[in-house]
Amino acid sequence: MDAQVAARRIDFQTEPSRYRHWRVEYAGEVANVFMDVDETGGLFDGYELKLNSYDLGVDIELADVVQRMRFEHPEVKAVVLQSGKDRVFCAGANIRMLGGATHAHKVNFCKFTNETRNTFEAAGAESGQYWICAVKGACAGGGYELALACDHIILTDDGSSSVALPEVPLLAVLPGTGGLTRVTDKRKVRRDLADVFCSIEEGVKGKRAKDWRLVDDVVPNTRFAETVQKRAAEFAAKSKRPSDAQGVALTPLERRFGEDGSVTYSTVEVEIDRDKRVARLTVHAPREDAPADMAALHGEGAQSWILRAARELDDAILHLRNNELEVGVVVFRAQGDPALVAAHEKLVLDNRDHWLANEIVLYWKRVLKRVDLTSRSLVALVEPGSCFAGPLAELLFAVDRSYMAEGDFEGDNRPVATLTLTAGNFGPYPMSNDLTRLETRFLGEPERVDAAKARVGEALEAFDANELGLVTFAYDDIDWEDEVRIFLEERASFSPDAMTGMEANLRFAGPETMETRIFGRLTAWQNWIFQRPNAVGEKGALQRYGTGVRGEFDMKRV
Amino acid sequence: MDAQVAARRIDFQTEPSRYRHWRVEYAGEVANVFMDVDETGGLFDGYELKLNSYDLGVDIELADVVQRMRFEHPEVKAVVLQSGKDRVFCAGANIRMLGGATHAHKVNFCKFTNETRNTFEAAGAESGQYWICAVKGACAGGGYELALACDHIILTDDGSSSVALPEVPLLAVLPGTGGLTRVTDKRKVRRDLADVFCSIEEGVKGKRAKDWRLVDDVVPNTRFAETVQKRAAEFAAKSKRPSDAQGVALTPLERRFGEDGSVTYSTVEVEIDRDKRVARLTVHAPREDAPADMAALHGEGAQSWILRAARELDDAILHLRNNELEVGVVVFRAQGDPALVAAHEKLVLDNRDHWLANEIVLYWKRVLKRVDLTSRSLVALVEPGSCFAGPLAELLFAVDRSYMAEGDFEGDNRPVATLTLTAGNFGPYPMSNDLTRLETRFLGEPERVDAAKARVGEALEAFDANELGLVTFAYDDIDWEDEVRIFLEERASFSPDAMTGMEANLRFAGPETMETRIFGRLTAWQNWIFQRPNAVGEKGALQRYGTGVRGEFDMKRV
Repeated sequence: MDAQVAARRIDFQTEPSRYRHWRVEYAGEVANVFMDVDETGGLFDGYELKLNSYDLGVDIELADVVQRMRFEHPEVKAVVLQSGKDRVFCAGANIRMLGGATHAHKVNFCKFTNETRNTFEAAGAESGQYWICAVKGACAGGGYELALACDHIILTDDGSSSVALPEVPLLAVLPGTGGLTRVTDKRKVRRDLADVFCSIEEGVKGKRAKDWRLVDDVVPNTRFAETVQKRAAEFAAKSKRPSDAQGVALTPLERRFGEDGSVTYSTVEVEIDRDKRVARLTVHAPREDAPADMAALHGEGAQSWILRAARELDDAILHLRNNELEVGVVVFRAQGDPALVAAHEKLVLDNRDHWLANEIVLYWKRVLKRVDLTSRSLVALVEPGSCFAGPLAELLFAVDRSYMAEGDFEGDNRPVATLTLTAGNFGPYPMSNDLTRLETRFLGEPERVDAAKARVGEALEAFDANELGLVTFAYDDIDWEDEVRIFLEERASFSPDAMTGMEANLRFAGPETMETRIFGRLTAWQNWIFQRPNAVGEKGALQRYGTGVRGEFDMKRV
Repeated sequence: MDAQVAARRIDFQTEPSRYRHWRVEYAGEVANVFMDVDETGGLFDGYELKLNSYDLGVDIELADVVQRMRFEHPEVKAVVLQSGKDRVFCAGANIRMLGGATHAHKVNFCKFTNETRNTFEAAGAESGQYWICAVKGACAGGGYELALACDHIILTDDGSSSVALPEVPLLAVLPGTGGLTRVTDKRKVRRDLADVFCSIEEGVKGKRAKDWRLVDDVVPNTRFAETVQKRAAEFAAKSKRPSDAQGVALTPLERRFGEDGSVTYSTVEVEIDRDKRVARLTVHAPREDAPADMAALHGEGAQSWILRAARELDDAILHLRNNELEVGVVVFRAQGDPALVAAHEKLVLDNRDHWLANEIVLYWKRVLKRVDLTSRSLVALVEPGSCFAGPLAELLFAVDRSYMAEGDFEGDNRPVATLTLTAGNFGPYPMSNDLTRLETRFLGEPERVDAAKARVGEALEAFDANELGLVTFAYDDIDWEDEVRIFLEERASFSPDAMTGMEANLRFAGPETMETRIFGRLTAWQNWIFQRPNAVGEKGALQRYGTGVRGEFDMKRV
């Protein structure tokens, strides 16, 4: 698939008129989302998306559905996820696609699908959009993992519809999109029953599925539609979303790809230095004052800087992750007026009770989490003229290291480098571990969080920022260039795998949540198995799937 | 190394007169432990243990030191871990050993060293034996991980002594014995400083090591010995261990290896069915009454059933893990009088304030954790005549599944199968996640823990045990044999890697601790990296170490 990946850039932008796999019916406070995968619509050649199985392309559309539901449909309070096909709910990730994919593609595919599941899983609690899964037909593997991420699962009791995680017996891999974690930690299925469940290819149906806590409702087919409607209405009644608000259209991003690999958005710029294996990602501050109030922000809609920058940053990260595999280091820069960044952020932070402000803050939270979870070495350069304030300052605490320029730089007439903390750095954008990035940073010295808080609003220069522990290193004009160059060269020379493992361990100190478990423990084991000959070798189960010949295993335990 | 492993059984039993790598000086309440590795004393051929580097053999001796300290030396309240060599503390795991080892050996080596670190790390809080690390000379990789597991680290400020985790830059693998986890979660080093620290081959010394929280004390060489003494005395003063108690000698185990792979101990029996890839491990109940009181138990010492069974079970598990790699399933059985098991346990549970009772309970806790962490499918068969009570009942909740025989079995005149809960199942043997196994089992239905507690002391037959949710399945005489056989056959046919990943995820629901992180997240990433060509391929850094040629990497990130 290597050549294919190179030949074809994976695009994470889409819109309803281009969907091939999903259909959404909006009708007031309940939306119906139908999964109806086009067999011939695979992102790559070589496989057919039979039985509502999915590949990355299918998931990109789902992510778009979820995102637009949040912004374009404030009236939606409950979402019913269901199959558009007759006898199958969803067969999970397409096995032939997985069998043919590179290790890197498999890993990035799982990461993105996980992020999408997390997004609609959080939609109920955060945003008042509850997802209900209505299961008819076989719901297996990634299909059941879709259900697991919903707030409620209803299974029809038609004698054949079932839920299943058949990955282990069938494919010798794990249910890698949160399945094992959600079974034990969200649904709290008894561990021995979970063991049995994960060993049964055909899955569990009817009353047993409910008894084992695998689903919430099991209802006769004759009462299925009615029960689904009833549950949707119940969840909608819990929602605090406004019924009469006007959505904000997520218009296409302004985006231009250069031949040198650069990408230029309206607020974000990406340059690729292939020799050095470095991407430089620069976020530009707004050039105009913040909207006067929420009405004005609503009027600007997707054109508002605060929403635009989040969308562009999100797309840029996804592009780098999936299309620039040889870039080992992402360097974050920010240029412009930090006061304007802070002002634009302030409007939404001050209006969290307005659905749109809330959605924008939540979007920043998701984008920043996406940064945390990006398997590249991340570094921030706080240079003269930079605007690391509020959500952009948060980037400084997301990266593995930060370098800050100290004092005047000869021949550089941009303002001296500063960073500015805002209320945004103390709560609204928690990491997957549910702590703020500053709390995680200062686990050993929690008093430093307060010390930093006392300086909110100040444009902190390097000396102060360093004293406060907010940056890793501060260098003056004389040392800056060499220090940064040496670091980038050193980092680019390390084994990418060791970097991935090290960063995955160092970035998430402190408490664990279902999310950190999914991305830490489950993903790590899945990646390991995705390397093992028993799964991906010539005779491995994943390779042999569909050939009629079972995998052959080296039976040694490790 | 495969052939070597087969030719040579790894023996986890040793005793001080056979040590080649450690020296212990006992002098009242402070013991001095010297690491002085014999270069020529490697467990396998092909490498020299230079610079106090270690292999599994070195660690088996250390585990023995730690264990004997607990039982044979109740007077010890502080332990000073130090190097017996002049210019090096410890260079970590031997790289040539790792380079030559099979994947399975690397993984099992790391698991055992981790368990040993956890044991002395817990000794202070649990047992009043505090470990203090006195670092002179280079303390790198696994060497620093030894220090990290201690309660206190003192580094001499001699201009050259340093602590380091150079695995990533040097070897393209992770510090896999808890290093990354303890840096962020125990010592709470700021994550960007941890990133810098883990990238510096030569490590960090002097004041910076203290400022970054990597060590607790940095003292001039001239005051080093005195400071170490002082700290040891301070920790000893915190200890509640008795000063005048008599230790219990850990006499050699009664153990016989059969040609068919069987192992017979005094209370434990292991049979291997190689065709089925199954090991049957049977624990036998005591045949005699429990000792009348602690004085009597102390008199029996290592011959007491409750201590003997723990030691034998521990050794049997380690033997299976390391010497029987093709055994995919361990079947636990228990035979004898459950009332006697409960009575022997009761004596130690009722006397936790007696150092020996406390140590025995803690030992069972460790052995049961060792079971939890064993990468084999674990199943328990509760058959007629069985004695799953107290610590043995705990095995039922450690395994992946349990099968219980219901009612009378034709031609079997042993007592009908029962299981007996004791106070031991509700607190003293927590898992790595700090919950009891029953709490973990019933995460979704916590009221079931209370329901079970109400039945303490009853010999529960299959119907009741099943109703209470204490076993996975109950079958009568007609179905028993087939059901068990089908399960064992099915399990043995699954990919061992998928089993390992699945079990690692299903066994540890609920809260996370440093231990679950080490064995879950860190180990999983390390195992992944141990499979990646950048580390273990022909041109990988681990293979090339010591050749003067650096590793060559595929620079693609995943």
